[in-house]
Amino acid sequence: MSYTLAEIVERLGGEVLGDACTRVSQIATLSSAQPHQISFLANLKYRSQLAGSAAGAFIMGRDAAQASSKPRIIADNPYTYFARVSALFNPPYAAVPGVHSSAVVHPEACIADDASIGANAVVEQGARIGAGSIVGAGCVVGRDSIIGSACLLYANVSVYHGSVIGDRVILHSGCVIGSDGFGLAPDDGRWLKIPQIGRVVIGNDVEIGANTTVDRGALDDTVIEEGAKLDNQIQIAHNVRIGAHTAIAACTGIAGSAKIGAHCTIGGAAMIFGHIEIADRVNISTNTLITKSLTQAGTYTSALPFSEHSEWLKNAVQMRHLDSMAKRIRALEKKLVELEKNQHE
Amino acid sequence: MSYTLAEIVERLGGEVLGDACTRVSQIATLSSAQPHQISFLANLKYRSQLAGSAAGAFIMGRDAAQASSKPRIIADNPYTYFARVSALFNPPYAAVPGVHSSAVVHPEACIADDASIGANAVVEQGARIGAGSIVGAGCVVGRDSIIGSACLLYANVSVYHGSVIGDRVILHSGCVIGSDGFGLAPDDGRWLKIPQIGRVVIGNDVEIGANTTVDRGALDDTVIEEGAKLDNQIQIAHNVRIGAHTAIAACTGIAGSAKIGAHCTIGGAAMIFGHIEIADRVNISTNTLITKSLTQAGTYTSALPFSEHSEWLKNAVQMRHLDSMAKRIRALEKKLVELEKNQHE
Amino acid sequence: MSYTLAEIVERLGGEVLGDACTRVSQIATLSSAQPHQISFLANLKYRSQLAGSAAGAFIMGRDAAQASSKPRIIADNPYTYFARVSALFNPPYAAVPGVHSSAVVHPEACIADDASIGANAVVEQGARIGAGSIVGAGCVVGRDSIIGSACLLYANVSVYHGSVIGDRVILHSGCVIGSDGFGLAPDDGRWLKIPQIGRVVIGNDVEIGANTTVDRGALDDTVIEEGAKLDNQIQIAHNVRIGAHTAIAACTGIAGSAKIGAHCTIGGAAMIFGHIEIADRVNISTNTLITKSLTQAGTYTSALPFSEHSEWLKNAVQMRHLDSMAKRIRALEKKLVELEKNQHE
Repeated sequence: MSYTLAEIVERLGGEVLGDACTRVSQIATLSSAQPHQISFLANLKYRSQLAGSAAGAFIMGRDAAQASSKPRIIADNPYTYFARVSALFNPPYAAVPGVHSSAVVHPEACIADDASIGANAVVEQGARIGAGSIVGAGCVVGRDSIIGSACLLYANVSVYHGSVIGDRVILHSGCVIGSDGFGLAPDDGRWLKIPQIGRVVIGNDVEIGANTTVDRGALDDTVIEEGAKLDNQIQIAHNVRIGAHTAIAACTGIAGSAKIGAHCTIGGAAMIFGHIEIADRVNISTNTLITKSLTQAGTYTSALPFSEHSEWLKNAVQMRHLDSMAKRIRALEKKLVELEKNQHE
Repeated sequence: MSYTLAEIVERLGGEVLGDACTRVSQIATLSSAQPHQISFLANLKYRSQLAGSAAGAFIMGRDAAQASSKPRIIADNPYTYFARVSALFNPPYAAVPGVHSSAVVHPEACIADDASIGANAVVEQGARIGAGSIVGAGCVVGRDSIIGSACLLYANVSVYHGSVIGDRVILHSGCVIGSDGFGLAPDDGRWLKIPQIGRVVIGNDVEIGANTTVDRGALDDTVIEEGAKLDNQIQIAHNVRIGAHTAIAACTGIAGSAKIGAHCTIGGAAMIFGHIEIADRVNISTNTLITKSLTQAGTYTSALPFSEHSEWLKNAVQMRHLDSMAKRIRALEKKLVELEKNQHE
Repeated sequence: MSYTLAEIVERLGGEVLGDACTRVSQIATLSSAQPHQISFLANLKYRSQLAGSAAGAFIMGRDAAQASSKPRIIADNPYTYFARVSALFNPPYAAVPGVHSSAVVHPEACIADDASIGANAVVEQGARIGAGSIVGAGCVVGRDSIIGSACLLYANVSVYHGSVIGDRVILHSGCVIGSDGFGLAPDDGRWLKIPQIGRVVIGNDVEIGANTTVDRGALDDTVIEEGAKLDNQIQIAHNVRIGAHTAIAACTGIAGSAKIGAHCTIGGAAMIFGHIEIADRVNISTNTLITKSLTQAGTYTSALPFSEHSEWLKNAVQMRHLDSMAKRIRALEKKLVELEKNQHE
């Protein structure tokens, strides 16, 4: 598969400078691109790498249009353009439609004709798999779960009973949808399990990373709205709601009943308390703990700067004396006022 | 399935106020309950929601007995009572006993007659599955492992060889029991693997969340005592011991050979150093790092308050100057004493 | 299987003190060892435990040679020696070569004659499994992936298409190799997925823990160099490079395009920013966030000391006033200088 620059702009817009008949067959980084490949400059600060790149053509913004004399496509947003060109050269894998002979599909499950059920996958009673969806090898789709159309479940995904998953959803290997929330009532020194009878409901165009877990609701549902993107190893507790088009980086945990707004970004290894609400368009930094509701868009942080270890120890030990330091400063200020007064008398 | 309030209190205790013949068929939250459902008030601060709830009946504490005139059950502990009512309406799923035709059970494995082995599950040589236990689709139970009675392994659980699991244990999808501990000896610039020959031993009534990992012991065993509850994505390293009825929230990590007491609670994303001991009834806060043994019950914390980002930066940069700040305060105090002395002379 | 001390030193070096004909059949800790077992003293501070140990023999350093009169092996490095003795007594499990009848191997996959493909495993089109490698039950090896020789994949491992894995690599249950990186371009309020077309390339003698995830590269590859050891539940993002013989403890996350040097150690639950470089022989402490490149070997930390909760609250609240505290100290210092000047006039 290859395209000329002219063919690319015909499909995706933009403008060609230089030879529009230049033919490329893959996209690559500036440093690794070969002459039959197209590369891209998404950030002007890497402009100096253009000269050394063997790429046959570039994608760049209008501000960089003259930074190379090679054939190039000028795009309003070169990074988005790159994503589209990459999709052109790398269409999704076309799975073979049908149920693999080793898969176990319950007679009362309903599989669309052109869906693909992989080797050793299991689809339980009452489950429904929509048109064009791919259920990878070793996946288990629990009873009465609904998978929409054009979904892609990679190998070894587990979907518990009663989950509802929209269209064009991607679930990566090892992710678990619909496991029980951590619902316990203290009962005379023991823990009484609270049945988790809510569901997980996932909107269209959601992507969920490898080994991420999404717990079912205790009574009501856990909801991930359309277009949300979750990276790997994220934990979503019961009754959480993730707003539309919110992106969450890896290793983050969101505790029970937290409501996250739309168009938020949450950095890696953030932790969010339960029963709080985060407004739309909030950005939370990596390693930050959010302990109360955020009603205003903005960026919030609690991550500490690191130091060389011995330096760190010297400073960190003072953390335990901050209250006393604050009091001593106040005492000094008072005394100083007094001294000044005395001096002026 | 439905019950009158009279039938419920007959089974679970408590007292009915209002029409004891009121019939309900499910439990629900105050906001989503329908007239054929019963809801509950576990915390007086939500009392104002009672009026707007369409629930046909309520569960509430004695202190809230007059907060509604609808039919209601008065219970000593309404939250625990709710858990029991929910269990009444939502009995565990009854799996079909027997070995699914696609499961692979080694001829020298021993499966109780009424146990259920799901589609494409694997039970290896010498493993034993107890009475009434359910091994979900795609699970792998390694050689010589023992699963007690009335256990529930959801889909795609991995139990390594030689693990010992008690009765009524619940293992959620993707959890891994008995993987090798991280045992390495430095050897001339390389790492020499130390064989991990201990086991994982799990007591009765333990529940382990989705994608949680429990490493086998290096020489002795890793032990999780009865009634402990582990949420999702927790890492338990080799030779850890978790005391009875301790509850651990998601994303927590416990390093090798740490001993956690009984009846502890550990918040999400806590980290606990190896080779330390935590007393019974210790509570550890979310995002807290415990670096040394805790010999006293109590609550321990190291999580930082977040701020708006620019505010945070201004303050966080001072973390690197705490030692110097402490010294400057001491210097000021000394000078001030001197100044006061001079003034009085 | 049992060995005399003489036989052990013949194989592994070292020197016997006491009866070299003493026969032992397993290795154990000082506290649990039986008379037919050998134990070890790797750290002089545990020397007092020797007297109470029932072990039939010990491994110890030259500095402890006279700390017991029992038969003992004196080794230069008793911990490494213990690892080797343990490997002698606990050889790896010998899987049955061949493809289990329930496994699904694509006709165009290539399996070495003496490799072992477990029950219900799946090996897709074009994949290659090397000599002596074991693919555990329920594993899925994606199309065109290459697994070297003498590898060990425990149950339920997922290897995506096109991954390249060296020799003697160990992958623990639930780990995911080659999932898509978190590559998204903002596009008018939605997220545009960037195809992830790089691979994961893993060197020889790497070990990867349970439920660890390694994302494939966006364009270039994600690389884990030879001898690196990754614990459980680690997240390696796209285009990361982990240097040779680096060891990473559990729950750590490494963001996209970070380059970690060789011979580093990274403590549990550390987080490392993307697009930075860490020099060789850097040690990163538990719970530490590394936000910029480290060009010098050394130890780096940002983890906070914990306190009893009410104590903690009192101090932590001052974190939000550090900048103001610093300013007030400066103001005090100025005023004091002035006061001193006035006094001397």
